[in-house]
Amino acid sequence: MSQLARDLYPLAGRKEELSKSIVEIDRVKIGAGKPVIMAGPCAVEDREQIFTTARTVKESGGEILRGGVFKPRTSPYSFQGLGKEGLELLAEVKEETGLLIVTEVMDVRDIDLVAEYADILQIGSRNMQHYPLLREVGKVDMPVLLKRGMTATIKEWLLAAEYILRNGNQQVILCERGIRGFQEYTRNILDISAVPVVRQLSHLPIIIDPSHATGHSELVTPLAKAGVIAGADGVMVEVHPNPEQALCDGEQSLDLPTFQKLVRNLKLLPSNSEQEI
Amino acid sequence: MSQLARDLYPLAGRKEELSKSIVEIDRVKIGAGKPVIMAGPCAVEDREQIFTTARTVKESGGEILRGGVFKPRTSPYSFQGLGKEGLELLAEVKEETGLLIVTEVMDVRDIDLVAEYADILQIGSRNMQHYPLLREVGKVDMPVLLKRGMTATIKEWLLAAEYILRNGNQQVILCERGIRGFQEYTRNILDISAVPVVRQLSHLPIIIDPSHATGHSELVTPLAKAGVIAGADGVMVEVHPNPEQALCDGEQSLDLPTFQKLVRNLKLLPSNSEQEI
Amino acid sequence: MSQLARDLYPLAGRKEELSKSIVEIDRVKIGAGKPVIMAGPCAVEDREQIFTTARTVKESGGEILRGGVFKPRTSPYSFQGLGKEGLELLAEVKEETGLLIVTEVMDVRDIDLVAEYADILQIGSRNMQHYPLLREVGKVDMPVLLKRGMTATIKEWLLAAEYILRNGNQQVILCERGIRGFQEYTRNILDISAVPVVRQLSHLPIIIDPSHATGHSELVTPLAKAGVIAGADGVMVEVHPNPEQALCDGEQSLDLPTFQKLVRNLKLLPSNSEQEI
Amino acid sequence: MSQLARDLYPLAGRKEELSKSIVEIDRVKIGAGKPVIMAGPCAVEDREQIFTTARTVKESGGEILRGGVFKPRTSPYSFQGLGKEGLELLAEVKEETGLLIVTEVMDVRDIDLVAEYADILQIGSRNMQHYPLLREVGKVDMPVLLKRGMTATIKEWLLAAEYILRNGNQQVILCERGIRGFQEYTRNILDISAVPVVRQLSHLPIIIDPSHATGHSELVTPLAKAGVIAGADGVMVEVHPNPEQALCDGEQSLDLPTFQKLVRNLKLLPSNSEQEI
Repeated sequence: MSQLARDLYPLAGRKEELSKSIVEIDRVKIGAGKPVIMAGPCAVEDREQIFTTARTVKESGGEILRGGVFKPRTSPYSFQGLGKEGLELLAEVKEETGLLIVTEVMDVRDIDLVAEYADILQIGSRNMQHYPLLREVGKVDMPVLLKRGMTATIKEWLLAAEYILRNGNQQVILCERGIRGFQEYTRNILDISAVPVVRQLSHLPIIIDPSHATGHSELVTPLAKAGVIAGADGVMVEVHPNPEQALCDGEQSLDLPTFQKLVRNLKLLPSNSEQEI
Repeated sequence: MSQLARDLYPLAGRKEELSKSIVEIDRVKIGAGKPVIMAGPCAVEDREQIFTTARTVKESGGEILRGGVFKPRTSPYSFQGLGKEGLELLAEVKEETGLLIVTEVMDVRDIDLVAEYADILQIGSRNMQHYPLLREVGKVDMPVLLKRGMTATIKEWLLAAEYILRNGNQQVILCERGIRGFQEYTRNILDISAVPVVRQLSHLPIIIDPSHATGHSELVTPLAKAGVIAGADGVMVEVHPNPEQALCDGEQSLDLPTFQKLVRNLKLLPSNSEQEI
Repeated sequence: MSQLARDLYPLAGRKEELSKSIVEIDRVKIGAGKPVIMAGPCAVEDREQIFTTARTVKESGGEILRGGVFKPRTSPYSFQGLGKEGLELLAEVKEETGLLIVTEVMDVRDIDLVAEYADILQIGSRNMQHYPLLREVGKVDMPVLLKRGMTATIKEWLLAAEYILRNGNQQVILCERGIRGFQEYTRNILDISAVPVVRQLSHLPIIIDPSHATGHSELVTPLAKAGVIAGADGVMVEVHPNPEQALCDGEQSLDLPTFQKLVRNLKLLPSNSEQEI
Repeated sequence: MSQLARDLYPLAGRKEELSKSIVEIDRVKIGAGKPVIMAGPCAVEDREQIFTTARTVKESGGEILRGGVFKPRTSPYSFQGLGKEGLELLAEVKEETGLLIVTEVMDVRDIDLVAEYADILQIGSRNMQHYPLLREVGKVDMPVLLKRGMTATIKEWLLAAEYILRNGNQQVILCERGIRGFQEYTRNILDISAVPVVRQLSHLPIIIDPSHATGHSELVTPLAKAGVIAGADGVMVEVHPNPEQALCDGEQSLDLPTFQKLVRNLKLLPSNSEQEI
């Protein structure tokens, strides 16, 4: 696979020497061996919700808080996020907990605003081929988390990363979040094979998001473990203090005790160095 | 189907009385019974190419010229379109031929520029869920051609239309252009069933694009006819004076004589009023 | 396309001279230009149902009666068909009306029995790659209607036909019946592009089944017309005297007056000789 | 999920008390906690190939030998398997090594023959909805390995199991082997989420086959580990002494040293009892 990769993806493609890129933010290293945990609610809803969640994420050993403030919703009549007010809440949470912040940007005109508050800019599935946005975040000096489009091939995904990289920004983290397929019991199908495939083709770190992929909280833990053992550099999961009252994605959100159990389970997995690769 | 539709799609959904919306631009009416033909190259490449094509489109009875100047390409290393220079060429062509112009806009910051030259703003497949763009074209007083996302459900598509409609712009034309599936001989699968389904659910006009859907020029004519007989309000096809030299999508472009034959074939079809519905 | 086809499909592939195979049964010719209509209920249920339906099919100009007696049902707890008793009813109907009979066989041990009563052996979607069955019907001197598997590629489908052809039976009719995809308003997606693709690749006649494909009676007529205008050699549709009481597939069955209207609509279409190909 | 399951799948559905079925063959228990390893070539080719492979499987700790003798091939011109001669080779191998044998049956008329030699009857993907075959293996007193159809939903798969169970045979093992989707780097997409979903819905044991799913030997080990950590009761992998000379599926076959490494890696995984479920 890798020979072809260098031609198709001059920047995202893996080089001869198999070096792996590490995205480093303060003391957090993504791609350095230890799986990184990004957790938090689908959307920032209010002060209490985000502070409660963040404290649990912090105590459990999570290092990065996720939380949407600009929400791309299928219907214009669904909750669209708190916008700037949400960013300010995230800033307060960061101040208190020290957690890093990842949050989505979907409008080229919002990049400066979001970059002021976030530590990682998230590009959501629906925007994976929103090329003006990819070009602009390519000019920012901040890590970008690029989610795979709901039905993007791996080739299209790496070429989307290439749009960011060739504009100068080398800090790209890929995120597999499930693809559309023949499922009736899950929301999408988590394509865990994307993890070893990307490792063959590219030097970029890759994490998985089993919450969006499955849509059911009871499936999140087994699939988070599966992704990490297959080589993922981290997981992104949805956590909410009261899943049944969440303004979006409640069904797939872990409550706080279940999230703590997930973290303990991930720690039981043999590290890459213990395994024969 | 239609009862549910009114709840889900307050603006795009069909009303009790089955009225159909007509999008009218100068003397061209889309949705009024007679199928409208939009034709032209994938991308505007140079003066000769666009003028030669436009004259044939005009002579053959086409009323709207398509031609991309901002091209959303999977790879950043592919030809990205002529940009403003292409818009100026389109303006000259319109001046000479009187054809209306449809061309894609993919950056919210380009809407004013494109709207200055175009008669219809095209939202491409990759941008069907680019919500900031949908909101902004919803504020413009100009028809919008909304292509179905490559793997969007009809529900997601109609909800994307709803984003435009609720921002004020009622002139939305839907365009089915093929979905991703299990094909090896075609580029995508043209979902012709979307035509009667949309007619059941919505009052918006719908056209089909068999060029992108199939990726092969020899399949374009039979599928254009199929779409129209199934109820489509028009077709959008790619035409190029020298398909084998096209900068993009040459394989699926009709040469000029084949395009003329397509138009003659469409005229042979019984009109809706001759058929028993 | 066709060069490659001759290598991949030595028997099903189209020859240089573009000759088209005609499957002839008594006075009915499938593949000879005039679209053939096969109609009838999903399943033979009782004497009255099958006789009432058959008389309408006959009067409306249909030539072939469809009706399942061995039903491949997803659940073992659903109605499985009348078996031999159903075949005997079909024989009586044939005696009275002169309609030809097409019915499914799904067990190699039933081929002789079904062949005694049927004029065309149907291989259903679920059995498209049931190779022992394909081999055995390849040894029978009777036309075989081979439905495309629900998610089969066209290549897999033509290779399945090849299994029949190379065992001696050259009377194969292909039937496109919809593939699985991203739909919520239809049962499957009718891949009408399969019609012109098969015409490019193969000399075998091809018909379409818009009833199974769509699952909704109001979508059957527009898609039947679309398939025929795209080049299909016939249509297979489900018809039932009381669709809402049908033991299977009621939602997609046409009632008798709607079926008669469908037939009249198909007759309004320009014939292949009137069109420029 | 499980409430609904009991209604839809009266036999395959999980009961209140969460009991898990164990399929026991001699001393091998499938579903009892320790993952079972089934390994061997795609097809039995000759004495040397199958003996060499079997000895390595045995030495490495595998307990069940896989090897096809009746091969369902997409093209009738591909190698179709050794048939009875292959079964006799498998019997000799079993005699020498003590390995249990799993091999595919695809013709109802071959069940007695295959059952004479095999310990587990395999129903392949293409035959998941071959109902006469399911009914007949439901009457045999021998475990059945039921592969998921290439595009079957989990519901269709469990209902296929239900066909076997209601005919009397309660020894059904499910096998996830990849589904068709949007991939260009893998042959199919291994749906690892099927493992925890099936655990929620059913008491039947489930294993995974990462060889067919991925089509690339370098992806087999990470996905085998992922499946087991997600809860699979075993893995089925293709192993060949000279993958590049295999008569089928060489690209996805592990060579013997890589297979041995896979087994060692699986042993490093924490057992279910070490994990918090």
